Amino acid sequence: MPRIDQLASISEAPGELTRRFATMEHKQANELVGDWMREADMVVSVDAIGNVLGRYEASSPNAPAILLGSHLDTVINAGKFDGMLGVLSALACVESLHAAGIRLPFAIEVIGFADEEGVRYQSTYLGSRALCGNLDSSVLTRVDKDNIALGDALSIFNSSAAQLPSAKRAADEIRAYLEVHIEQGPVLESQGVPVGVVSSIAGATRLNVSLLGSAGHAGTVPMDLRRDALIAAAKCVLCVQEACSGQAGLVGTVGALDVKPGAGNVIPGEVQFSVDIRAARDVDRQRSVERVKTEFSEICLQNNVALTIDPVHEAESVDCDPQLVANISSAIESHGLSVVSLPSGAGHDAAAMASLTKVGMIFVRCAGG
Amino acid sequence: MPRIDQLASISEAPGELTRRFATMEHKQANELVGDWMREADMVVSVDAIGNVLGRYEASSPNAPAILLGSHLDTVINAGKFDGMLGVLSALACVESLHAAGIRLPFAIEVIGFADEEGVRYQSTYLGSRALCGNLDSSVLTRVDKDNIALGDALSIFNSSAAQLPSAKRAADEIRAYLEVHIEQGPVLESQGVPVGVVSSIAGATRLNVSLLGSAGHAGTVPMDLRRDALIAAAKCVLCVQEACSGQAGLVGTVGALDVKPGAGNVIPGEVQFSVDIRAARDVDRQRSVERVKTEFSEICLQNNVALTIDPVHEAESVDCDPQLVANISSAIESHGLSVVSLPSGAGHDAAAMASLTKVGMIFVRCAGG
Repeated sequence: MPRIDQLASISEAPGELTRRFATMEHKQANELVGDWMREADMVVSVDAIGNVLGRYEASSPNAPAILLGSHLDTVINAGKFDGMLGVLSALACVESLHAAGIRLPFAIEVIGFADEEGVRYQSTYLGSRALCGNLDSSVLTRVDKDNIALGDALSIFNSSAAQLPSAKRAADEIRAYLEVHIEQGPVLESQGVPVGVVSSIAGATRLNVSLLGSAGHAGTVPMDLRRDALIAAAKCVLCVQEACSGQAGLVGTVGALDVKPGAGNVIPGEVQFSVDIRAARDVDRQRSVERVKTEFSEICLQNNVALTIDPVHEAESVDCDPQLVANISSAIESHGLSVVSLPSGAGHDAAAMASLTKVGMIFVRCAGG
Repeated sequence: MPRIDQLASISEAPGELTRRFATMEHKQANELVGDWMREADMVVSVDAIGNVLGRYEASSPNAPAILLGSHLDTVINAGKFDGMLGVLSALACVESLHAAGIRLPFAIEVIGFADEEGVRYQSTYLGSRALCGNLDSSVLTRVDKDNIALGDALSIFNSSAAQLPSAKRAADEIRAYLEVHIEQGPVLESQGVPVGVVSSIAGATRLNVSLLGSAGHAGTVPMDLRRDALIAAAKCVLCVQEACSGQAGLVGTVGALDVKPGAGNVIPGEVQFSVDIRAARDVDRQRSVERVKTEFSEICLQNNVALTIDPVHEAESVDCDPQLVANISSAIESHGLSVVSLPSGAGHDAAAMASLTKVGMIFVRCAGG
């Protein structure tokens, strides 16, 4: 816990925790974690994307490794457990082995991924995707809000876009990836258990929806002559809820909604909103997305409002490895706890790592979701 | 029309028409209109609130006056007919009398009200209420966005808050107030007539509504554990529409709606929105307001969301004088036009003037409402 506090004190913004990818604070966090890793007899490196890795050798050299970790970047005004808990609990495991003088038949690599949140470049999983060799080249040319290109930002790690392929790891070097992360949801708390085993990481569809009606004076346009974009949007919001309810592991959210012109005495002429639909099973998500799209069209037709739906993001669900799920479940049981298995609605580095190796995740209860 | 264009060119902002109360541009507009008034043999004055008045004497001196006019201030990025059409059409009437050498048994005063829109001080009808002696003293201490108090702003007219009572006119000096204004709605256009007679000016209730639920991760909180403030808000928006439909002269609008935190992957924890309900008959408006309040409570209870309703504004409806309505109707008929009588959903200086004298209004068709 003191380490979490110390790590959380490295922030771009005073009084809160904000640590974006490839900032000076990110570099400092890597160095601090690297120091702790060395104390546990790990060999430390920072790869071309800025992932910090500490390798605790096996009983014999050059053995494949199990990767344990999570991410060291944060959202704006983040919680101190998000990501860091997974890195530091992995470190604690190695320290425990080191203190007992134990070497295992496989190496352990603790990894602090460079960018899971994607705040700086509106990206996803820069760190884990670089390690898997799956970094989309279109991401490399992106610039941040200060117009700094991703490749230039890497100079803080003495790296560049051209060096990124060197971050890729071979599948035969790695036996599995395991990640501890806070649940960021209310399920474990509501069931009164401290940890749970993740069954899968949900797939997600994100849409941006624009409704174009007709603005007008709130006092002068009779109700039956209106083309109120917010009336149609309200029906769409309720449609998302309806289409995503009653099915375990399926959720749908309208989180952002902007009304234009947005004055109390003007009928809304334009509304833009986000739709975020996630499900453990891709078939559930796809069914809901199709239903939502169909009903949006009907709503807008009935309300004489023009509809535009822009797909923003689509990711398939990732199953955790059944053997790892069984192992984690046994470990939980061995502590006298009941095993709660749950899908992860949030995305995690484990989702990207699944393209390279078997993945497993342990969720830790957090207060109020 | 050239005068409208000339007047509309006096703007605080290049490329658009913005002329707020007691600005240099407002003073310039008063001076330009005053010049035109003098050309029509009117005696011009600017009163303590900044209303410009031109008096065209009756056949005998000191006769009571009929007031004709509208406002010279504008909203941000205004249309050039809003307000100015009423002032300049009144001026044209007097010019026509003057050109024909006609004096009437009553004086005509053409008035350009100083502040109808209330943009600068979030007020209503500063000009006409000062003339009626109804200016709420709490308004006088307000400051604009540059922290300039209303009383200080009056210095541009060589006036001050202390002088405002001098703007008040005695009821026996005035026989009636008549105003030409664009409809700002689609009724006349949809019925294919150029003008209509206003039957009443709608009463209005404005509410600010806050809904407080619980924010959460859009991927991790199951649907049945959510307290999504936007779901409740969407139901409230549809409730306003339902409660204000199917009754002539009744309208209800949610024009502003803000979602917090407002990110695509976060369940909305808080929503604030405006409600604007207007009706020609106060009983219709009050019934809808009560229904909306009751249903908001039920919706929020069902959705486990806290509800706060703040009343912002309440104004009773004002009936136009039946004799003036009849006179205007006859005038319309005498031009071979069908008489369309309609309530005004928007507020106008005539609503404030009704506390002093009989009022009548003529609406002029405008394109697309």
